[in-house]
Amino acid sequence: MPPAAPTPEWVKKLKPSGIQGSELLAAERAKSNVDVDALSRFIHTQEGLDRKARILKLLEHEKVFDKSQNYFAGRVDRFETALARAKKLRQIAVHHNWTQEDKIVANDLISEPGPYGLHESMFLITLRDQGTPEQHEKFLKKAEAYEYIGCYAQTELGHGSNVRGLETTATWNADDKTFIINSPSLTASKWWIGSLGRTANHAVVMAQLIINGRPYGPHPFVVQIRDMKTHKPLENIHIGDIGPKFGYNTMDNGFLLFNKVKVPHVSMLARFSRVDPETSRYLRPASPSLIYGTLTWVRSTIVMQAGAVLARGVTIATRYAAVRRQFQDRDAKDQSSETQVLNYTTVQIRLLTLLATTFALHFTGRGMMKLYEANQKKMSADAGKVGSAKRGAGPEETHSGSDLLADLHATSCGLKSLASSTAVDGLEVCRRACGGHGYSSFSGIGPWYADYLPTATWEGDNYMLTQQVARYLLKTARSVLKGNEPTNDTMAILRNFLDKSDMGAAFDILGKDEDLVAAFAWRSAFLTFEALKHRDEQKRSWNSLLVDFYRLSRAHSQYMVVKNFYEALNQPDVTGSLDPDTLNLMHKLFRLYALHTLESEASEFYTSSAVTVRQIMLARTTAVMKLLEEIRPHAVRLVDAWAFPDWQMDSSLGRYDGKVYEDMFYRASEQNPLNGIVVDPYPSSEVLFKENHSQEFKSKL
Amino acid sequence: MPPAAPTPEWVKKLKPSGIQGSELLAAERAKSNVDVDALSRFIHTQEGLDRKARILKLLEHEKVFDKSQNYFAGRVDRFETALARAKKLRQIAVHHNWTQEDKIVANDLISEPGPYGLHESMFLITLRDQGTPEQHEKFLKKAEAYEYIGCYAQTELGHGSNVRGLETTATWNADDKTFIINSPSLTASKWWIGSLGRTANHAVVMAQLIINGRPYGPHPFVVQIRDMKTHKPLENIHIGDIGPKFGYNTMDNGFLLFNKVKVPHVSMLARFSRVDPETSRYLRPASPSLIYGTLTWVRSTIVMQAGAVLARGVTIATRYAAVRRQFQDRDAKDQSSETQVLNYTTVQIRLLTLLATTFALHFTGRGMMKLYEANQKKMSADAGKVGSAKRGAGPEETHSGSDLLADLHATSCGLKSLASSTAVDGLEVCRRACGGHGYSSFSGIGPWYADYLPTATWEGDNYMLTQQVARYLLKTARSVLKGNEPTNDTMAILRNFLDKSDMGAAFDILGKDEDLVAAFAWRSAFLTFEALKHRDEQKRSWNSLLVDFYRLSRAHSQYMVVKNFYEALNQPDVTGSLDPDTLNLMHKLFRLYALHTLESEASEFYTSSAVTVRQIMLARTTAVMKLLEEIRPHAVRLVDAWAFPDWQMDSSLGRYDGKVYEDMFYRASEQNPLNGIVVDPYPSSEVLFKENHSQEFKSKL
Repeated sequence: MPPAAPTPEWVKKLKPSGIQGSELLAAERAKSNVDVDALSRFIHTQEGLDRKARILKLLEHEKVFDKSQNYFAGRVDRFETALARAKKLRQIAVHHNWTQEDKIVANDLISEPGPYGLHESMFLITLRDQGTPEQHEKFLKKAEAYEYIGCYAQTELGHGSNVRGLETTATWNADDKTFIINSPSLTASKWWIGSLGRTANHAVVMAQLIINGRPYGPHPFVVQIRDMKTHKPLENIHIGDIGPKFGYNTMDNGFLLFNKVKVPHVSMLARFSRVDPETSRYLRPASPSLIYGTLTWVRSTIVMQAGAVLARGVTIATRYAAVRRQFQDRDAKDQSSETQVLNYTTVQIRLLTLLATTFALHFTGRGMMKLYEANQKKMSADAGKVGSAKRGAGPEETHSGSDLLADLHATSCGLKSLASSTAVDGLEVCRRACGGHGYSSFSGIGPWYADYLPTATWEGDNYMLTQQVARYLLKTARSVLKGNEPTNDTMAILRNFLDKSDMGAAFDILGKDEDLVAAFAWRSAFLTFEALKHRDEQKRSWNSLLVDFYRLSRAHSQYMVVKNFYEALNQPDVTGSLDPDTLNLMHKLFRLYALHTLESEASEFYTSSAVTVRQIMLARTTAVMKLLEEIRPHAVRLVDAWAFPDWQMDSSLGRYDGKVYEDMFYRASEQNPLNGIVVDPYPSSEVLFKENHSQEFKSKL
Repeated sequence: MPPAAPTPEWVKKLKPSGIQGSELLAAERAKSNVDVDALSRFIHTQEGLDRKARILKLLEHEKVFDKSQNYFAGRVDRFETALARAKKLRQIAVHHNWTQEDKIVANDLISEPGPYGLHESMFLITLRDQGTPEQHEKFLKKAEAYEYIGCYAQTELGHGSNVRGLETTATWNADDKTFIINSPSLTASKWWIGSLGRTANHAVVMAQLIINGRPYGPHPFVVQIRDMKTHKPLENIHIGDIGPKFGYNTMDNGFLLFNKVKVPHVSMLARFSRVDPETSRYLRPASPSLIYGTLTWVRSTIVMQAGAVLARGVTIATRYAAVRRQFQDRDAKDQSSETQVLNYTTVQIRLLTLLATTFALHFTGRGMMKLYEANQKKMSADAGKVGSAKRGAGPEETHSGSDLLADLHATSCGLKSLASSTAVDGLEVCRRACGGHGYSSFSGIGPWYADYLPTATWEGDNYMLTQQVARYLLKTARSVLKGNEPTNDTMAILRNFLDKSDMGAAFDILGKDEDLVAAFAWRSAFLTFEALKHRDEQKRSWNSLLVDFYRLSRAHSQYMVVKNFYEALNQPDVTGSLDPDTLNLMHKLFRLYALHTLESEASEFYTSSAVTVRQIMLARTTAVMKLLEEIRPHAVRLVDAWAFPDWQMDSSLGRYDGKVYEDMFYRASEQNPLNGIVVDPYPSSEVLFKENHSQEFKSKL
């Protein structure tokens, strides 16, 4: 591609008109007393901030990580660059002896899915967690040395969430002690498998184990899929990239088909279940609960990440809304200059509520992860006992009782669904709040949104997951109705509702923060017992209740978020690092999140009698509007505290220095390869294009 | 790019497992008696269907319109192909003597924004509408012959919606009777201008007219910007493409800067206002209302298109939901085979409500366009009289009275906002309802969504527009309060509310369709008088009420949709072509749309006392669920009636024949250029890539 046309000198001298973006952001920062550094430490810890600074310094000077062509490059180029980056990153990680945290931060800063992604996560984790010592020796060592580069091949063209429905088979052959891996149909093709399309030479393949014609469900098999030298697919294996996607185009999500491929006995990962090679007997899983523990952990990290993912969009949109001016305030005396867009209440109601949401999600994720870690040892100790409860697939009628972990597992499903949906939808709100320029890739929001989007589908579809929450809440409600004593928070709020439902609720949502939390708990309990009535008394079909269950899960998860946010701000040992003004502002953000959520879902709060119509009206027209006004002056400093380097966000609109228009113009005028071509525009011409500035051509006019 | 790897023979023999997609869709079509052809005619007219069939036949055999690489190609390739298509289309149009309708249908079928887009719309329209006969001779003729290829340069880097804030100047020079077009700052750069980046050689430039140092506001100037032979920018003009966007990447949206470029007096389009070349006097606009009329027309078409835009996503998602099977119904006796996803109520509540919405928007747009056309003559006749009312920029305190057109203008703003937001958000709901495969470009929804997205921003930002609706409703309410007799529907519903607000409402929303419409009218009137109280009695600031105004506009627009849908189904002369069963089903779709909207916005309906809590509970848990069950069997035939050819939708998931998985696989395996490269995957290697299947390489293992 030839270079873009040069920018003439007279253009280079032009500046944006009026007050400069840098002056506007400086003024924003001057009028707020939020201690940005202290708040950054509160969010990320000093260690986290130092790590980020150290790694950023390293990456931004490596040529391969230069981002300037990211938004322009096509699929093949983007993939090739991403692979080159992944290689370089691996070399740096080895050279500097990086920890796991270091690698996560580096990937965060680079901000694109890379072709080693699934090798470094699911492939290594699965080998480590599900392999025997012999298999560690044989597979894991080489994988850790990047001789085996792997992927995790579970999803198929015809099956996603329903793992039990997978069609790929692994048939045990007692004669020569091998398995035959086979794809009996087109829908059995592995599909969506990250790092498989072009990169991996090995795969962990989830396949239906069959012994003597009897199926034993899906099990993991380590299978070599490409030649170690030529990197071509092995015989009877068909592999490829599945094609372009809405986002994630730096990743080679792939497909994979087997035509009766023979693998040795050692290929089946055998830590938890295995086939006895002598007797051909299937030996039962030892501790499947550990797998469910991993899923719970993954979901907790998704909740915490959701806060940061959204914060990036909010940072960009908030800074740009402070720089962008449009129209005059209708009531303003001075009609000569235009108003910063951030001053409009229609912008505040979108951006400031989302700003509050970033903190709400962050503290909720952090709360869950603390709870998870605290309980992790307990779970390992009595894995056998909690196993059945945690699988969540047991009969709906029984309840295993007072298990904190069952609670954590169920709430992690609901919170993953709520948090990722909130972040995805919120990013799009941020993008649109940027007006026309939000549509440009240079806004940095669109590409980020597109890459994050699948989080709403994977690790459990956001609709499917809500059934698990509802199932758990119904079980718990039955247990409470039987008179069992509360042993976790969910039981406690259900018990409290039963005790007080006669006299009704009287929550002072506008006056007391703890009453706001209680109103959310009340609504969740009300909906739980409503659903229980439909199911157990009215005997309604499960399918007819799915919509109610979705609402129930959402209500309960919103309660969890409000509760976690409230608790995070009421632990003096934790919040002590913040000055009183900043802490007070955080309390206002809590109230904004809670009241705005409450009034958005007003009808459920009425119906449950948690609040009155008058309270909702006041929340909507007075309390929320007042909070917006109070938080407004601190908006830019609050997003500054999230501490995203410009290099990471790669956004014209979100630049820390406010040089929004200069950056937009520079990228368009000097970096855009399309400006390197000159076309013949006339419909009559046969000659279509001429890709060079120096030649002239004659049109057929 | 080398071709993708060949598909082995054993793969070609594989079929999807279980019941085939084609069988499932055939079964769906067999169990419904909806007369697809009659319903198609009802939506599109026979003439429209015939036109589409005729043009499709022509296009699908032209090689340049082959869509198979659309999802794979990068920006430059996509633009070049789009330009080649635009040229060919122009040649065909000339050859076959196409009408305007023919061209619209052809563009609909091709379904991508093309580089002649703005030439063929805004450039030609503006020359035609705002040029004098002399200017028609000089500019329009050559533009119609495609010698002048133009664009409409209004938006600037620093100014979008606020046209009065444009910075580009056109300074009158009495000495030599010329204008100097100039960009005084970087933010004055024209930006987002469709067809400008690479294609246009002329532009209609909106610039601030300055005479003797005094500004006269923005006016249109015809300016040559590129050389007619070399197609290079003229001296002191800097032009380029603004870079990649979320969608719309087949269009060369451009930027444009002027360094004191001199143009002759004839350049200013002078039908409505002009500069007298002898006296340098500014002569006032004759009939600006015509421009507002055009905007109203454009918005009406957006509303109608929104229905069809959404219908395309609903068609894809509904067909795929009938083919895709996942899990068993929990209560089903037969747990051996999986359930069609379309049977789950969580899927129905999303897709069937959106299916109802497609018809609601379609009939609303049609209703508006009829009203517009009926009034168009009247407006031309007394353009002077209605001018000031239609501009909507007059003082808020006065009301021009009984003007149907003022009503149409205001409601077109609100409906444009509601309809385009509904279509955009609905498409994303459809995409996610497709599960993981919705994320693949082959779903056909993502790219379509991305291209449609800017409709929510252009022709008036969806938030900004709502102020105009609120302003109009407040004016109208003041007029009604003064005792003026209703002369349009908005006045009538406000009057009715005042008359009955003492005794309160008692709408039988579950029993009578007309009461459903009345409940929406009641809520709109209630919110209008609430807003009026805040503004006129409580003297609240305009800015503090913007959020309320947004809600008010939304409420009033939803009323308009419900009313138009209801009326469309209650005109025997129109609906006579439908058999009773199909018409009955359409009434059910009306009720589903209305009740689902009502319960989604429940809190406003409570607050206004339009309905009781009990009614909402029944609507939610009983009426809506029952309607979903009744409409479910007809879902596939209903989307069939929208009559999108496969060629147009270009979607694996939405294929008419249900061969979803075969198509996904074929595109990935045989059309994907990324599969033409082989990489060296090892981090230690220096050699990064090898783009050829035939060679082997040695890794550095």
